[in-house]
Amino acid sequence: MPYFIAVYDVNQKRVGKMLKLFRRYLTWIQNSVFEGELTEAQYQRLRHEANMLMEEGDGVVIYRMREERYHERHVLGVDKGKPQRFL
Amino acid sequence: MPYFIAVYDVNQKRVGKMLKLFRRYLTWIQNSVFEGELTEAQYQRLRHEANMLMEEGDGVVIYRMREERYHERHVLGVDKGKPQRFL
Repeated sequence: MPYFIAVYDVNQKRVGKMLKLFRRYLTWIQNSVFEGELTEAQYQRLRHEANMLMEEGDGVVIYRMREERYHERHVLGVDKGKPQRFL
Repeated sequence: MPYFIAVYDVNQKRVGKMLKLFRRYLTWIQNSVFEGELTEAQYQRLRHEANMLMEEGDGVVIYRMREERYHERHVLGVDKGKPQRFL
């Protein structure tokens, strides 16, 4: 299953809603950073919902890897979010 | 060359210094998110310098991929940082 890292940079007014949306699909890591596995259908729904919430000046960058094994994850200092999914 | 995505979540007092440090090695994307290629030596130096700057409660997560081609990058809305390196 493809693995995703997602980061958003949105107006303060929309941070709460974006956090809630991304938490439904991915695992919160820190600040506005999320990661996790998604099916293609889930990914397309997340994109659609994010687009619906976003307004001018907002931005989301999503890194997509074919599988989780294509990356290593190194943590310095505190690991603010453990990669478990709460579904 | 390995490709890196780095995100930090540090105390407000240290954001300026962390931004300056990460900008020396990687390309700023948005908020506290950076990406780019690094040699292993450059990566170890970045880790060392980040560790020296960080204090209790600060966290950095670094995703390492063997090569840039192992991921796709999708942008929704505004792409706040273009992935060029200013060296």
